[in-house]
Amino acid sequence: MQFNITPLSDSIVQSIKHKIDSKTKPLGALGMLETIALKVARIQETDSPSLKNPTLVVFAGDHGIAKEGQVNPYPQSVTAQMVYNFLEGGAAINSFCKQNSIDLKIVDAGVNHNFKNAPGLIDAKIEYGTRNYQQGPAMQLDQGYAAIAKGATIVSTIYKTGCNCIGFGEMGIGNTSSAALLMAAFTGIPIKDCVGAGTGLSSSGIAQKKEILARVFKGCTATSPIEKLAYFGGFEIAMMTGAFLRAAELKMTVLVDGFIASSALLVAHALHKNVLDYCIFMHNSGEQGHHKILEYFRQNAILDLGMRLGEGTGAAVAFPILQSAIGFLNDMASFETAQIDNPM
Amino acid sequence: MQFNITPLSDSIVQSIKHKIDSKTKPLGALGMLETIALKVARIQETDSPSLKNPTLVVFAGDHGIAKEGQVNPYPQSVTAQMVYNFLEGGAAINSFCKQNSIDLKIVDAGVNHNFKNAPGLIDAKIEYGTRNYQQGPAMQLDQGYAAIAKGATIVSTIYKTGCNCIGFGEMGIGNTSSAALLMAAFTGIPIKDCVGAGTGLSSSGIAQKKEILARVFKGCTATSPIEKLAYFGGFEIAMMTGAFLRAAELKMTVLVDGFIASSALLVAHALHKNVLDYCIFMHNSGEQGHHKILEYFRQNAILDLGMRLGEGTGAAVAFPILQSAIGFLNDMASFETAQIDNPM
Repeated sequence: MQFNITPLSDSIVQSIKHKIDSKTKPLGALGMLETIALKVARIQETDSPSLKNPTLVVFAGDHGIAKEGQVNPYPQSVTAQMVYNFLEGGAAINSFCKQNSIDLKIVDAGVNHNFKNAPGLIDAKIEYGTRNYQQGPAMQLDQGYAAIAKGATIVSTIYKTGCNCIGFGEMGIGNTSSAALLMAAFTGIPIKDCVGAGTGLSSSGIAQKKEILARVFKGCTATSPIEKLAYFGGFEIAMMTGAFLRAAELKMTVLVDGFIASSALLVAHALHKNVLDYCIFMHNSGEQGHHKILEYFRQNAILDLGMRLGEGTGAAVAFPILQSAIGFLNDMASFETAQIDNPM
Repeated sequence: MQFNITPLSDSIVQSIKHKIDSKTKPLGALGMLETIALKVARIQETDSPSLKNPTLVVFAGDHGIAKEGQVNPYPQSVTAQMVYNFLEGGAAINSFCKQNSIDLKIVDAGVNHNFKNAPGLIDAKIEYGTRNYQQGPAMQLDQGYAAIAKGATIVSTIYKTGCNCIGFGEMGIGNTSSAALLMAAFTGIPIKDCVGAGTGLSSSGIAQKKEILARVFKGCTATSPIEKLAYFGGFEIAMMTGAFLRAAELKMTVLVDGFIASSALLVAHALHKNVLDYCIFMHNSGEQGHHKILEYFRQNAILDLGMRLGEGTGAAVAFPILQSAIGFLNDMASFETAQIDNPM
């Protein structure tokens, strides 16, 4: 599958910087808000950017290894139960999207449950959960390709409704394990430094998770990005990979959530480096591996509140900060129009 | 002047923690949002807190020393010009308050300009700017008391309109110097470590500012909190001190902005320790002394974006994060009602 992702042009950088510097404030005094404003202006190639129909898509999928309960404190059944919770409006992501007027879409990427056309659920199921990667690849290569394609199609559909700003979240019991494996595979950081507490493992639980995942990692002979993705899973991560790539191709402003989302972005980045040009890193997750992915990408995140919930909650909570960055660029007076004296 | 500030009660801590922990998320997974939710619930003594008519008050005042141009890159005239900019809606704080539906009030605490009843401006002028503290106290003691009283009265008036959540910002060319002097006086940190670039001094400018302020600090013989406040000024800081104390007395949730606001809080805290119980620290300013004040208070801030603009902008930009904390506590389903399995 081909994605044509254009790198950001430098053509308007000087004019945007001039606009920012002429605002009635000391030079640089809005800190990271200025960096973000410049980036979104470059993405949209205008000095008056706007965030239209902001949307957050939560991809849900199940993981073969989670059936064993060796790496996850919660049972696999919770993935499907949380999907119903999303549909009924009771989850954290519902609260934050409602607060910030973000449209929320829920996608069954591969949950081990038959939702029987539950109202509001986007059915993109590849399979009833991945296989356990302790016994070989989590999915077949063609399933990986299919998931990437579906993620891309879902983004295209949302784009056509007038959305230019999109974030991705996930739900999948066991998916911090897939993310840790992908992180090790794509960054070269030792697997033991990629593994964290997930939804709340004890220190002995983390030790067991490290041991199991180190063995899986060692047993994997995948070489290409798609093979690695297929080996470690999951369907929700593969779908997010396609979603990132299509959103960047469509020049949308892309909101990057936490650990799992960033693992999908690692895959997308390995396929197309330019994808990062369209990404705003919304938060630094409390899951211990995440800040190392941010370092690998050489990116700073907006928030660092110790959140580690997934679902896209970091992106949704930080969204108003992104709006503030756009807001000051569009709303503030200049020294000239406000007739304010310059420095002496 | 007496302020009767009640320490927070522990009575509902257990029930709030139970409510937070029963939400459909891993224990502690919302990080600092959980800490904030607990604090606001304790302030309001309810498990369903709400933020009503959020208001941000910007106090503006001028500083005698700023006439010399030795510590400030911008001329003193900018204080009055920026007040007009606030009234006309062109400043950063206007953009952020509008975005986040925060009511914005502008107060002339002691600007060196006759505003002639400019529409929308609250006239609380103590004097046309403070005196230059290089030649003795910036204000008389009774002016300090009057400013504290006016700050308190302004908060009481806003409280009566149904507001239970209030933040304070400031404008005053030269006021990072007052704030640095107050910081040194109240924390015991050497004055040279309290001085920063303000609105953008060069390194030689900072060196000169340090030298001047070290001489002023050494020459000051004030001992009581009010004497120190009066010596170093300014009127906007004194008024914020009274505003903090009254807001805490009225059990409002108090939004603490950056370096100048925190210097006023140092004075308020020296007068009444319990004031901190009502404070949420909204951001860590890029002005270098600020994080040391946060350490002194043993508090973490919500945002750390390198912002150093003043006006209350840090508080206004971070406000939606506070709303997210309240939102999840009120909106999210529990494991029981959503029928989600507990950890194995």
